[in-house]
Order: sequence, then structure tokens, then C-alpha cells
Amino acid sequence: MEYGELDKITEKVTELLSEKNFREIKRLINELQPQDSALLIDAMNEKDILPIFRLLSKENAAETFVEMSSDGQELLLNSFTDAELKAVLDEMFLDDTVDIIEEMPANVVKRIIKQSDAETRKQINEILKYPRDSAGTIMTVEYVSLRENWTVKECFDRIRKIALDKETIYNCYVTDSKRKLIGGVTVKDLLLHDYDTEISEFMQREIICAEANDDKEYVAQQISKYDLSAIPIVDSENRMVGIVTVDDVLDVMQQEATEDISKMAAVTPSTDTYMEQSVWQIWKNRIPWLLILMVSATFTGLIINSFEGRLNALSPLLFACIPMLMDTGGNAGSQASVTVIRGLALEEIRPKDALRVLWKELRVSVMLATCLAIVCFGKLYLLDGLAFGYNYTWYICLAVSLSLFATVVIAKIVGCMMPLLAKVCKLDPAVVASPFITTIVDALSLIIFCFISMSILPPFLA
Amino acid sequence: MEYGELDKITEKVTELLSEKNFREIKRLINELQPQDSALLIDAMNEKDILPIFRLLSKENAAETFVEMSSDGQELLLNSFTDAELKAVLDEMFLDDTVDIIEEMPANVVKRIIKQSDAETRKQINEILKYPRDSAGTIMTVEYVSLRENWTVKECFDRIRKIALDKETIYNCYVTDSKRKLIGGVTVKDLLLHDYDTEISEFMQREIICAEANDDKEYVAQQISKYDLSAIPIVDSENRMVGIVTVDDVLDVMQQEATEDISKMAAVTPSTDTYMEQSVWQIWKNRIPWLLILMVSATFTGLIINSFEGRLNALSPLLFACIPMLMDTGGNAGSQASVTVIRGLALEEIRPKDALRVLWKELRVSVMLATCLAIVCFGKLYLLDGLAFGYNYTWYICLAVSLSLFATVVIAKIVGCMMPLLAKVCKLDPAVVASPFITTIVDALSLIIFCFISMSILPPFLA
Repeated sequence: MEYGELDKITEKVTELLSEKNFREIKRLINELQPQDSALLIDAMNEKDILPIFRLLSKENAAETFVEMSSDGQELLLNSFTDAELKAVLDEMFLDDTVDIIEEMPANVVKRIIKQSDAETRKQINEILKYPRDSAGTIMTVEYVSLRENWTVKECFDRIRKIALDKETIYNCYVTDSKRKLIGGVTVKDLLLHDYDTEISEFMQREIICAEANDDKEYVAQQISKYDLSAIPIVDSENRMVGIVTVDDVLDVMQQEATEDISKMAAVTPSTDTYMEQSVWQIWKNRIPWLLILMVSATFTGLIINSFEGRLNALSPLLFACIPMLMDTGGNAGSQASVTVIRGLALEEIRPKDALRVLWKELRVSVMLATCLAIVCFGKLYLLDGLAFGYNYTWYICLAVSLSLFATVVIAKIVGCMMPLLAKVCKLDPAVVASPFITTIVDALSLIIFCFISMSILPPFLA
Repeated sequence: MEYGELDKITEKVTELLSEKNFREIKRLINELQPQDSALLIDAMNEKDILPIFRLLSKENAAETFVEMSSDGQELLLNSFTDAELKAVLDEMFLDDTVDIIEEMPANVVKRIIKQSDAETRKQINEILKYPRDSAGTIMTVEYVSLRENWTVKECFDRIRKIALDKETIYNCYVTDSKRKLIGGVTVKDLLLHDYDTEISEFMQREIICAEANDDKEYVAQQISKYDLSAIPIVDSENRMVGIVTVDDVLDVMQQEATEDISKMAAVTPSTDTYMEQSVWQIWKNRIPWLLILMVSATFTGLIINSFEGRLNALSPLLFACIPMLMDTGGNAGSQASVTVIRGLALEEIRPKDALRVLWKELRVSVMLATCLAIVCFGKLYLLDGLAFGYNYTWYICLAVSLSLFATVVIAKIVGCMMPLLAKVCKLDPAVVASPFITTIVDALSLIIFCFISMSILPPFLA
């Protein structure tokens, strides 16, 4: 559904609400996909959220609840009766329950745990034990397990019996009596064989799996690389504990990309969306980086101070070129760094490619720098010099263009090597990205500029 | 498989190759997943690629071929005999064939088309007609279609008969005699109903679909939002033409994120990976932006030139603070812009939220700016002034800190509003990102700085 359409329905519901026409609201919201009814309810006034939510049918209620914002969920959890809470929890898949528990404050979590049955409670506690961002935290424990001596018919009987409660039934896993993973069959394989064939005859024995402690990003990469629709998760003794499906991984991949983008822009990543974060949270995620970068810009100040007297003696016009030099250096550096960081994240570039990357950037940077230096020379001499009437002599233009050339080449080298260095040192390449590289390149380009200016200009001006 | 492991196998194969032990190579590479054998063959010397590829079994050959780099594919397509080409093409899914055709030069495409059978050729031509980046170009035409008066048993018989050739069988679509889409059933639904139930009794009639001309990004968003494993694609008359599956969408989403990241770093996006792009291509994707940004930095130069005489009369130390002011402004601006751009891409922020975003950024920016201004004042006065012995008076520190405050607030406002403005004007928000905002903020911050300095300082210095 397009956002425009949903906006119209939201308006309609608000109108019906003022007319107290609950029957019509009930009809409208039960026709929506859960993702849309969640957006609609989230957009309502706080006091209307619970009454509208109560109009959802039993199944729609749980599915909608899972899709709502955590603020909306918290509000509902605090206003539900015990019976309502139990009804919603009973309909939810375990991995969704765990996701919600991870977002809620302690008193709400206590209530959720109290309303869950003993088996669910045990499973929730198991999942909560896995390290942050591990495969264990995103897996679902509801999967179909089969035995290798079963026939296709027996497998189908089993699947028919339990399918209703399982999120995914198309990838089934074959385990032995100790729950150890020994193979996999898909429903497609089952459909392609006769009813009385034993699955041991055709099941896949070499299957790609991940451990519950593996990073969820690794799991996402495996699924994406091998085009899997699900991956089995095992413990350290190869006992099957759950599966991660491709739709869980879609979210992981979007989150990872968002995190990398945040880091590149010098913002501490957050799992909440921008609109959900409070002003205070946003401030907290941004201030440390701005402070660090501001203080590190001190170096450029010190460099300027120490050269100022001498440069000013040459020509005050040189100063006017410093921002252009620094900006171009910063942009050239972040082009290289951001490309390499993304390449590393997608595993298209690996640390052992460092020399090839360096050689490539060296050639690209010389080509870019030549082109920029020529244009810069022309712009200073013709536009600023002749058209605007500033006194840019040949020598000043030459000094600035040469500095620009050197700055661009150095910016590219620093830009492509820093993320690779970070990767080798097991640091996060995205964190060393553009802002830091800009600061380093700023300082280097100023030093180069001052030296080049002083060594080219004096003989001519003397 | 970890890259380390694959490196070892690649070394082993190179060794076996020098010993001409083809039997062992054959065993090794046929045990790998197609994605891994593709990486392995891509890493070989050009002259070894064909001989090693020929050692793959018939099925492995096609699957490996699809996963190889386009350079490797082109090399093979040029060296295949007609029979080999036909064998590989016959085993490939149509959407993979189309992907390869889109990457290959005209003479290779001609050969591929010639070796395809008439039906495939017709389908290839249909798909090639869809606009670039549309759903039609990523969809597969091999899906299961059922009729609404069939029983579950008839459906299973149908699926059993055709499953081998279909990429996805779990989502089946119900069409009428004119191929119009009227509903959907999943294999799970089928398994949950008795063999003699007619599917019209339980099929889902309201199904989310997309048109072949829709942007592939829209399709990706629908699949991700509604947690679908496949989405049916229809033409303008609601006739079913294909399906897009979630694994196709994984690639689309990664590409979109990479494109946005490239644009934010002022690089024209490319569909090739960094390692695949030639030096010349990389140059072409980067130079226009660097040139535009360099020339637009002229403004800052002009501003400095026009204020220089007057500022220098106040204190040359003021100049040393310009890079710090500009860098902090740039960083503050890109924090806001990148956050908003990503929010827009994920539809977490919408243009109608503009005022809420502005109000949020205003509060955040005042908090950030206050904190930065205080630290800046302290740093200048205590560190640079007292510790390094530069003559930073109270008045200079005050002028710089006030300018910093104003710069940060303006940077945040420009940073958050520009992407929203771009979105409203139907431009790509990512393109107006950090580099452009930096240039605007640079110019504004310089003007503010000059005015504040001149209005605060003279009375005291006079």
C-alpha cells in the first residue's frame, strides 16, 4: 500500500472515531495488512491506541502488535489486562517475543515472562543468553526436524501435523536421536520423490550451517552468498538449535548498511529510527565525534599559525586558497575511503588486496589530480585573476595547483589505506572513515601547501 | 566457506594443475558450492579457466557459470564450442541468462541468442524490453500457476510434474483462463488442507503484487515491508508475467545501499565492484564531482579575499580558526544530512515530517552547539592561549565560540532540510548530501565568522 492511501484511511479512522462508529473502524482495520494497521495505530493519539487495538481480530492483533513501534508496544503492554497480554503472547512467534523483550524496560519484561507458559519461558531465557548481535538472537526455534529413516509420506504427515505453528516449513532438517544435524531436505525435494522413498536416499548431507554464537552479519552474508532461504543454527556440538530465515536477514542487512552509513558520517549508530530517538539520544550519538574532530582540527590551526607570518609576506591571496585545497582534499579522500569501506563490508575487497587497491588508487589519483590541477590553474589565473581582478600571478597559480596535485594524491592514498589498516588491526573500517581522514588530509595538505609556496615563490618575488 | 579455506583449495588446485592431476582437481571442484567454485575459477590464470571449467559436472557447470565475474563469463563465452554453450544455457534459469546478456558485448549476445531455443529467445526479448531498473528486469518467468477449481491433490500433481524447472514452487498463483491473477496459495496452505478440497475455498484473494514497470526498489520495499518470500508481477491489465523472489531482492537492497553510500561520498555509483572497475571507469565516476565541488569552493575563497584586509587588522590569529570552524560545520551538517537521507531511503522519514525533523534538529543543534562552543572557548583560551602562548584574548575566544555556535546550528538546519527539499522536488536526496552541504555551510560559516568578529572585536581593540 502506498503511503498516500494509508494516510487517507488514517484520516477516515480519525473521523469515524469522533463519530464513535467502532463497527466501521473494526471493518476497516481488519482488512489491512498487519504492517499497515501497525502504522495506522502508531499514528493515533495515545488515548485512542488501546481502544482501536481492541477492535482487531485475535490473529490480526498479534501480527499487528509485532509490527508496531516500540513506544506503541510499551504503551499497549502497560495497558493490557493479563488476559489480553496472554492472548497476544500465545499468538506470537518466539523470535518476535524475544525481539520485543529486548526493547522493553524491566517491569514490562517481568509481566511478559509471567504471562508466558513454562516451555516458552525456558526458550526465551535460552535465547536471551546468546551474545548481542549473534545468530542466536535472531534465530527462530520453530523449525521442522525429520529423521533419516522416514519415508516421504511420513515426512509429509509430520509436516501437515505441525505446519501451523512453524514459521517456515519448506526447509526441513534431518537430525539424529541426539539432535545432531545430519542433513537437510526441502519440501521441493519431497515433492519430487515417490511417497515410499526413504529421505536418506536423497537428503543433502553437506549443508551450510552457522553456530549460534556467530555474528548475525556473518549469517546474513552466508545466506546472501549461497542464495539460501534459511540456514540451520547449531551449538558447539553440532546439535541443532534453530534456523535463521532470509526475511530476518533482510532486516539485518538493512541495519548493517545503516550502521556503516552512520559511522561514515561520524554518528554513533542506533537501532531506533530517527523519528523514534529522543533529542537527548541524538545528541549523545553525535557529540563525542564532533568534539574529537573539533579538537583534532587544532593541528591545522597550529600549522597555519606557525606558517602565517612567512606566507603573508609572500601574498595574502594564498590564504584564500586554503579552504578550496582542504575541501578538495577531504572530498578526494572520502571518495576513496567510502568506496573501500563498502567494498570491505560486502567482502568484494579483502585485506590481502591492499597492494592492488593501492596501485589502482595511485593511478586514479594521478589522473584526477592532473585534471584538477589544470582546471584550478586556469580558474585562478583566468577567472579570479583576470575576471575578478585579484592579483593571482603565474607563480601563485603554479604553487596552488602543485599543492592541489599533491593533496589529491595523498588524500586518495590515505583514504584507501586507512580502512584497510583498520581491518587488519581488527578495528571497524567504517569508524575511521571520512571525518578522520579529512582531518589527517587537512593537516598534510596545509603542510604541503606551505612548503611548496615557500619554495616556489621566494626566488621570483625576491 | 571462509575465505581462508577457499584460498587453501585454490593453492591446492594450482599445485595439482602443474602436476596435470586433472582427476583430483575434478573431484575437488565438484565438491564445492557453485559460489565457491566460481571464486576459485575466477582467480585462475586466463589460460587455465576453460580447462578447469570443463572439469565441472553438467549441473555444476551452469550454476558455477552464473556466479562467475562478468570478465570470466565473457572469456568462457568466447572460448566455448557451440555445444558447450548450448549445454550451459539449457541448464540456466531465464533470469540469470538475461542478467548475463545485459553485461555482455553485442557479438557475445548474438551467439547466446543463436544457441537458445525459440521459446527462450522469445522470453529473453520480452524481458529485455522492460525499462532499466524495473521489476521486469529482475523477475523470473518460471513460476507455478494453478486454477481455482483444482483440488489440493490436482495442485500437488501439477507441482510434482513441473517443480524441477521452477526456481520457486512454494508460492503458487491462481490465474484465470486469460492469465489474470486472481489469488495465491502457498504449499503450506496446500499441506494444511485435505486432498479433495478445492483451492478456491482457502486461496488468498487479496494479494500484494507489483507491475513489471515498477521500480525494482519499490518491489524490494514491498517484499521487505510485508515479509514476503515472493511477489507476483503483473502487466498493466493484471495478467501475471512473472515473480520476484526474496533472494533477488537481497541483491537489489545491497546495491541500493551501495549506490546511496557512493552518492553521499560524491562518487557516481557503478554496478561493478571496485575490483572489477578499470582505473578509467573509477576516474570517470569521481572527476565530475571533484570538479564541481572544487569550483564551488571558489566562493569561500572570494569571501576570505573580501574580508581579509579587515580581519587581518583585528588579529591574524583569527585566520587559524577558519579550518576548525569549517570542518566542524561540515561534520555537523553531514551528521544531519546523512541521517535524514538514510531515513528517507528506508521510508522511516517522509517529506510531510519536515517540520518535526526541523524542530528536532533545532533542539539537538542548540544542545550540540552550546557544548562545542564552551569546549572551544576553553581550548582556545587555556590550551592555545596559556599553554602554547598564542595571544588568544577573551574577545577573540568569544568571537570564535559564538561563530562556532551559529555555524553548528545553521549546518544542522541546512543538513536536515536539503535532502527533504530534494525529495519534494523529486530529486535524489543522496546526491545533495555531505559534499554539497559542506560547501554551502563553509560559505555561510565564513560570512558569519567575519561579521561576528568585526562586530564584537573593534570596540575592545579600538
